[in-house]
Amino acid sequence: MIKPLGDRVVIKVSEGDIKTASGIVLPDTAKEKPQEGTVVAVSDGKYVEGKKVALDVKVGDKVIFSKYAGTDVKFDGTDYLIVRDSDILAVVE
Amino acid sequence: MIKPLGDRVVIKVSEGDIKTASGIVLPDTAKEKPQEGTVVAVSDGKYVEGKKVALDVKVGDKVIFSKYAGTDVKFDGTDYLIVRDSDILAVVE
Amino acid sequence: MIKPLGDRVVIKVSEGDIKTASGIVLPDTAKEKPQEGTVVAVSDGKYVEGKKVALDVKVGDKVIFSKYAGTDVKFDGTDYLIVRDSDILAVVE
Amino acid sequence: MIKPLGDRVVIKVSEGDIKTASGIVLPDTAKEKPQEGTVVAVSDGKYVEGKKVALDVKVGDKVIFSKYAGTDVKFDGTDYLIVRDSDILAVVE
Amino acid sequence: MIKPLGDRVVIKVSEGDIKTASGIVLPDTAKEKPQEGTVVAVSDGKYVEGKKVALDVKVGDKVIFSKYAGTDVKFDGTDYLIVRDSDILAVVE
Amino acid sequence: MIKPLGDRVVIKVSEGDIKTASGIVLPDTAKEKPQEGTVVAVSDGKYVEGKKVALDVKVGDKVIFSKYAGTDVKFDGTDYLIVRDSDILAVVE
Amino acid sequence: MIKPLGDRVVIKVSEGDIKTASGIVLPDTAKEKPQEGTVVAVSDGKYVEGKKVALDVKVGDKVIFSKYAGTDVKFDGTDYLIVRDSDILAVVE
Repeated sequence: MIKPLGDRVVIKVSEGDIKTASGIVLPDTAKEKPQEGTVVAVSDGKYVEGKKVALDVKVGDKVIFSKYAGTDVKFDGTDYLIVRDSDILAVVE
Repeated sequence: MIKPLGDRVVIKVSEGDIKTASGIVLPDTAKEKPQEGTVVAVSDGKYVEGKKVALDVKVGDKVIFSKYAGTDVKFDGTDYLIVRDSDILAVVE
Repeated sequence: MIKPLGDRVVIKVSEGDIKTASGIVLPDTAKEKPQEGTVVAVSDGKYVEGKKVALDVKVGDKVIFSKYAGTDVKFDGTDYLIVRDSDILAVVE
Repeated sequence: MIKPLGDRVVIKVSEGDIKTASGIVLPDTAKEKPQEGTVVAVSDGKYVEGKKVALDVKVGDKVIFSKYAGTDVKFDGTDYLIVRDSDILAVVE
Repeated sequence: MIKPLGDRVVIKVSEGDIKTASGIVLPDTAKEKPQEGTVVAVSDGKYVEGKKVALDVKVGDKVIFSKYAGTDVKFDGTDYLIVRDSDILAVVE
Repeated sequence: MIKPLGDRVVIKVSEGDIKTASGIVLPDTAKEKPQEGTVVAVSDGKYVEGKKVALDVKVGDKVIFSKYAGTDVKFDGTDYLIVRDSDILAVVE
Repeated sequence: MIKPLGDRVVIKVSEGDIKTASGIVLPDTAKEKPQEGTVVAVSDGKYVEGKKVALDVKVGDKVIFSKYAGTDVKFDGTDYLIVRDSDILAVVE
């Protein structure tokens, strides 16, 4: 599997219709559009002022992130996105 | 519900007429126009010099923020805005 | 009333003739023009290297600030300006 | 051999077909394309807030990195890439 | 009088002929031209890494500063300049 | 001789054919081209978070650095390059 | 005399022929050209992470600095240059 480094997270992006079970519907505006997905891997932690701390998300979290963030990778036929945790806006609970 | 991360806050934007009960009327100038709304979710805290501290706003606060700040999301048919707490100018008391 | 956050201050801008009782007259040059006003609200403090410290101005201070700083708000029919305390150049004593 | 300095890493880039044994296939999009390679040398460590710490990768790691990162060098007829460890997105496990 | 804030200093700019008693003559080049003046007010101190320290100049110092630095103010008919202390190049002794 | 300051290093650039004894051959691509040379002088150290530490290279090291880094100087008829140590990519061992 | 502030140094620039006794000859390339001069005044020190430390040069040092650095001043008929110590590349010993 892919192990992200530093402050990075691997996300399985929700495809197609973005009206998910959680009820998120992204508006059709000219503003920055967020996307939804599920965290499938997180790094071992990031440095904050010299101390290594855990990221704010964990594997399994459904998250909202900026559409233009990150780098696409395909692994065993599945598309993933590697993003920095600061590009994740919120967790859907 | 949506749980914002880091220094982010979820706001229910006041729509339509912005002459609210609190008496705020936004002027009609060429300057940056602020908007008003109510905080509906805050993160668990943000890092300041390596220590995690609470944000300056709490759920229920009526706040003024920059019009162009943040990212729109729709949740169960309601529009929300996710902004950084540094984009919140003031609390209306 | 409006409670500013972080390093922000609410100012009641001096209108009309800027020859105030304190004798400040702003010159008519092409340089950045400052404006004068009175502080009507300050935040609870700002973070400096991880410690929360009081701002350098207090309610009632007559201050000089950059003309293009801040955000206009109107509250109960009165115009105010929300500025960062770093945009305040000096206190008129 | 080449000993990278500071936060730098020497990578033997995977050439030709990028469908490697690990199953990574990079998508054909307009987004930033990552590349895959193997770490062949790392520095003695980098400074994080005044303390020297080990890098997040070690010799032998298969890594994904940004296509446009780093500097090409050829050593004994082999192409290498010297990149900063912050340009390495993830380790393939 | 005017009390500057933070790292700011109030200067009475030397007008007219800049061949002052101290012998400074500013050259007629295309480079940035400095100006001379006398410090008439300094702030209570500035923050350096979280500690409040005194500025490097004091009232009465004759100083050289960048011509394009600062903000003009007029007080009781006299022109002053409010500059950051980092814009003051040197003290003439 | 020339004593570099801060984080700077004086390098005797390898001229002419860049196929040196160490076997480095720089590729002919459009990417940033590194150059090779030998360190002839280093500073007394640089500040890292308030502590003075030794640089990562020492006199005699054969180093690879960015082609466009640094400032040319000629001393007793020989060309040298003064670069910051962060512009040195690696040491050839 | 002129007392520079902060991280600044006053330099008497070497004029005319830059083949000085120390043997420095600046090359005729398109790259940034350094200049040579002698330090005639230094500040009382600069702040590094909150501590005041001495500059890396002292009065009398022959130094090489970037041609485009600093501000010209004339004092008692002599041209000087006020530069930041970070613009000084090296000391000629």
